[in-house]
Amino acid sequence: MMRLEHIGIAVKDDQEAASLFARLLGEGAYKSEDVERENVKTTFFRLSNAKLELLQSLAVDSSIDKFINKRGEGIHHLAFEVDDIEMEIIRLKNNGFAFVNETPKAGADNKLICFLHPKSTNGVLIELCQEKRIE
Amino acid sequence: MMRLEHIGIAVKDDQEAASLFARLLGEGAYKSEDVERENVKTTFFRLSNAKLELLQSLAVDSSIDKFINKRGEGIHHLAFEVDDIEMEIIRLKNNGFAFVNETPKAGADNKLICFLHPKSTNGVLIELCQEKRIE
Repeated sequence: MMRLEHIGIAVKDDQEAASLFARLLGEGAYKSEDVERENVKTTFFRLSNAKLELLQSLAVDSSIDKFINKRGEGIHHLAFEVDDIEMEIIRLKNNGFAFVNETPKAGADNKLICFLHPKSTNGVLIELCQEKRIE
Repeated sequence: MMRLEHIGIAVKDDQEAASLFARLLGEGAYKSEDVERENVKTTFFRLSNAKLELLQSLAVDSSIDKFINKRGEGIHHLAFEVDDIEMEIIRLKNNGFAFVNETPKAGADNKLICFLHPKSTNGVLIELCQEKRIE
């Protein structure tokens, strides 16, 4: 069975949103990390069985900036954890799914990530992520 | 810590979406259930640590129909499982959160449910759910 690793939420102001989610969840964020090549600041909260990742744009025209301009703040993506991201990409391509990027790239939280194209997944942006291994 | 019970996904055609998510997850849906007072058909998939719930409207002007007309198909809500929904509503109201319905109502999957207003939660529609107890 697939495992949900985290849910990404696009926010305009990560300080304000982090305060709100701390009140909602009863517990504050445990880490923040900039992903500079994506121009995004991430802030992580623990749930008992997954994580929430707040995403704040660090630049005009970043993917998060475009998302918020088009749809407003809200749930941005679901991330599933896989053991072997390359094999999972092959399996999903063989099942007709399209990808935003087929070559895994470095994401936040020590992960290799790639995104399926939401046109092939009923409008749901889905990330695959794999923990980076020590080389 | 809060526990994510399921993620709700609004779809136009639940047969087509169920086939797509079965290919994505590598495993088919395990149950479907109509929630007539909400005019919605629900279809559930298991993840290893939570569930996905597809939501298809059964009537024009249902909340799912309105959501899809406004935003298109996609992620509709996050549901957190709580032990005592009445107590959690009081805690969250005391923390400044607004509710769509403050009185829990019967939802799918043998749950009592209520929704926080997305205006108070950064555009994220959040459900609280509690397993119904035997009276």
